[in-house]
Amino acid sequence: MRPGWTLQYAHAHRARHVSELKEFLRFPSVSSQPQRAEDIRRCANWLARHLEAIGLERVRVIPTPGNPLVYAAWQHARNRPTLLIYGHYDVLPGEPIAQWKTPPFTPTVQGENIHGRGTADDKGQLFCHVKALECYLRTAHALPINVKCLFEGEEEIGSTHLLPFVARNRRSLRADAAVISDTKMLGPNRPAISYAQRGGLRAEIEVHGPRQELHSGTFGGAVLDPIQALCEIIASLHDDQGRIAIPGFYEDVRNWSERERAYMARTGPSDEKILKDAKVDRPWGESGYTLYERTTIRPSLGMNGMVGGLYGPGVKGVIPRRAVAKLSFRLVPDQDPQKIARLFREHIARITPPAVESSVKTMSPVHAALVDRNHPAVRAAGFAYKKGFGAYPVFLRSGGSIPVVNAFQEYLGIPAVLMGFGLPDDRIHAPNEKFHLPNFYRGIETSIWYMAAVEKALRGVRQSGHSSQPHKEWIA
Amino acid sequence: MRPGWTLQYAHAHRARHVSELKEFLRFPSVSSQPQRAEDIRRCANWLARHLEAIGLERVRVIPTPGNPLVYAAWQHARNRPTLLIYGHYDVLPGEPIAQWKTPPFTPTVQGENIHGRGTADDKGQLFCHVKALECYLRTAHALPINVKCLFEGEEEIGSTHLLPFVARNRRSLRADAAVISDTKMLGPNRPAISYAQRGGLRAEIEVHGPRQELHSGTFGGAVLDPIQALCEIIASLHDDQGRIAIPGFYEDVRNWSERERAYMARTGPSDEKILKDAKVDRPWGESGYTLYERTTIRPSLGMNGMVGGLYGPGVKGVIPRRAVAKLSFRLVPDQDPQKIARLFREHIARITPPAVESSVKTMSPVHAALVDRNHPAVRAAGFAYKKGFGAYPVFLRSGGSIPVVNAFQEYLGIPAVLMGFGLPDDRIHAPNEKFHLPNFYRGIETSIWYMAAVEKALRGVRQSGHSSQPHKEWIA
Repeated sequence: MRPGWTLQYAHAHRARHVSELKEFLRFPSVSSQPQRAEDIRRCANWLARHLEAIGLERVRVIPTPGNPLVYAAWQHARNRPTLLIYGHYDVLPGEPIAQWKTPPFTPTVQGENIHGRGTADDKGQLFCHVKALECYLRTAHALPINVKCLFEGEEEIGSTHLLPFVARNRRSLRADAAVISDTKMLGPNRPAISYAQRGGLRAEIEVHGPRQELHSGTFGGAVLDPIQALCEIIASLHDDQGRIAIPGFYEDVRNWSERERAYMARTGPSDEKILKDAKVDRPWGESGYTLYERTTIRPSLGMNGMVGGLYGPGVKGVIPRRAVAKLSFRLVPDQDPQKIARLFREHIARITPPAVESSVKTMSPVHAALVDRNHPAVRAAGFAYKKGFGAYPVFLRSGGSIPVVNAFQEYLGIPAVLMGFGLPDDRIHAPNEKFHLPNFYRGIETSIWYMAAVEKALRGVRQSGHSSQPHKEWIA
Repeated sequence: MRPGWTLQYAHAHRARHVSELKEFLRFPSVSSQPQRAEDIRRCANWLARHLEAIGLERVRVIPTPGNPLVYAAWQHARNRPTLLIYGHYDVLPGEPIAQWKTPPFTPTVQGENIHGRGTADDKGQLFCHVKALECYLRTAHALPINVKCLFEGEEEIGSTHLLPFVARNRRSLRADAAVISDTKMLGPNRPAISYAQRGGLRAEIEVHGPRQELHSGTFGGAVLDPIQALCEIIASLHDDQGRIAIPGFYEDVRNWSERERAYMARTGPSDEKILKDAKVDRPWGESGYTLYERTTIRPSLGMNGMVGGLYGPGVKGVIPRRAVAKLSFRLVPDQDPQKIARLFREHIARITPPAVESSVKTMSPVHAALVDRNHPAVRAAGFAYKKGFGAYPVFLRSGGSIPVVNAFQEYLGIPAVLMGFGLPDDRIHAPNEKFHLPNFYRGIETSIWYMAAVEKALRGVRQSGHSSQPHKEWIA
């Protein structure tokens, strides 16, 4: 199957594709805010109806104890491989709203970009594949391969329910490779494939001070305030070399060969480039490593939020009752998030000043993931990028976590090809997130090319694509 | 003038006095919340009308660039001394509302207590004097002395506009002594006079991290997050002996004689008592000093609030743009708040990690204050307490700041007699603030006795009471 006519169709329907993407973006499907549960549900239903409308089959919204999964398949390519397409329809909060130039859930095209929460992360990228499927099904009335789509609504909160779902539904999800577009390229004409992601662990430390707020005049100097205690705890979590000062933390960290580090130095971004992307003047972190290394092959620990006492306008001379910090670890091969959680809890208990008490929660453990750069499904992505963007990709490591990559490797035994269409300045996770529209169009074209290329590449590698397992597993 | 009949009147009108106090308490006159400006204004007007109704003269609501002052006088006691009565009608916020058992601005009598914000600090205590004035004016149709009442609406935010007002209106405010009831006793039958208050200085540190929120996966490990930087700064402000680690900070701190420290040990609360009042298990602070000393003759630094990044429900893997902490210093004789502000700014600039920037604001500088325990106006208070509460007062130092005490000393040359009627468990500045009703009644009686006693005590000391200075100064 040659995608010529299919590509023409894609080009002719760009305007409609953008307007459908806007519909998708308008749902404030924020997974981390309980009050958005109904928006999540509506967004999942919309996506399911859309997949049905473009001709996919077995479409269903699969409930989980959290947010629903959306599944669809097309399995008529007898004796051909099966591609599992993953994406997430949940997004981060729009807050702080005041910092947006256009409202986060009113997608707005300005010049070559579409602005809004989820444009790049991940609705826009997910939609590239959806539209590629539509283009095939509307023109060839068939796909070059078998396809299973699995879209989740909890990626931004740790894919809590997707991971056990994948573990329980190995047969139903059987495929030869997975493709995920939820990463970024180096520039508009510089595709990149992420072959490594850091793992992660979220944590919350709460310090409990006096049982009631105290007047800071009456008791100041005799009672330790919980904010100060929490600051002392947090300040002691790094040493003066920028290393994480939790005993045993680096024990299992994989040391990479000089050859791998040289490859990274050759292919990865320079310190200057990373600082420029971050719009930050001065670097920070573990001495002895480049910034690219610090953000990929070295673990890190950052504070995502902290609050204690009075934080609104006004003043109040009190010793507050409690202070809380939200932290996130980024972990690397071969660190075990559960072990890190244990070391962290033990360490916090040890260093909490005796005049206060502390409690620790840990959440969302994710192992780091690695994908073989030489797998045929990865090489096929190189070919597709060359067709779609005019250039072969570079292979990069990512600092973030995509929990499902690990699950696909572990439970399904397949590689996840991270074929990203985002750009470094997309401001994902920040106000004024955007997606570059040329990347949206080329993303669709690249996906069209990829489905053709992966069919050839995987031919003979494994033949599970024609499987038509009943979907009983999901109901169990 | 013997107060017999006046005391009987006070007793007979207790129920009405409580119900008028409730009216006063219902105004949410929160000075630290700009949205309460109208409530402040209404509260000031109510108080002025009330003072007029009980027979005071020259009543006026004096505008300031901030919240208005309420003034009233009675100056017909020719050749007798003048007492300046100070109080504040502004209160702290009711937040966190959820922690109140009864709504903060719906005063509620339960058993022997009246609950609500401002009951003890300071509306209830201020009202003791107002009601004592009423009792005299309704029974004797005169006061034993001349009186000037000055009630402000910005005590909880540093008395910003009162202090320059006092400086500008020395002649109009001329008096022989001031009385302030805004402190606490040791117990229901254990009166106390505070003869020393700590000074203070508020500060805000803001740490500026990246110009935009950054994905903590992509950049974690290469960019210093502002929360961590702020925690490092705050953690370094104390050394491991609980001392404030700002160079020069202790340079001017007055060292007290062994005799004074022995007096304090004899008269002041024990460590156990202070911990019990705070409901805290373990002490903290500067080694080498008792808790009473740490909270009175030693300076302290506490954090009143801190916020950075995401602090609501949910998670968000970001490096935030900024983090802010609100701090307050408590200062002692002979520290100069302006000098401390300078040392603090210099120190923060010096210790801010180079990968971020910081800015510092300092506000509300207040000098520590001392009142001569042997001044006749103070001795008269001892007599009045004995009459009202059946016991002579102990003389205590307070850890908090009453900025006006200093201003009265400096600009008017008069001592401020801190005749408190609060109790240690009144939870001022905290949820469920209350005032003990027997203390309200006895406070009124004590004020009645005080006006009679101070007339005798000050007779001949100074004769400025009959002054009838025109009030032009206020208009200028």
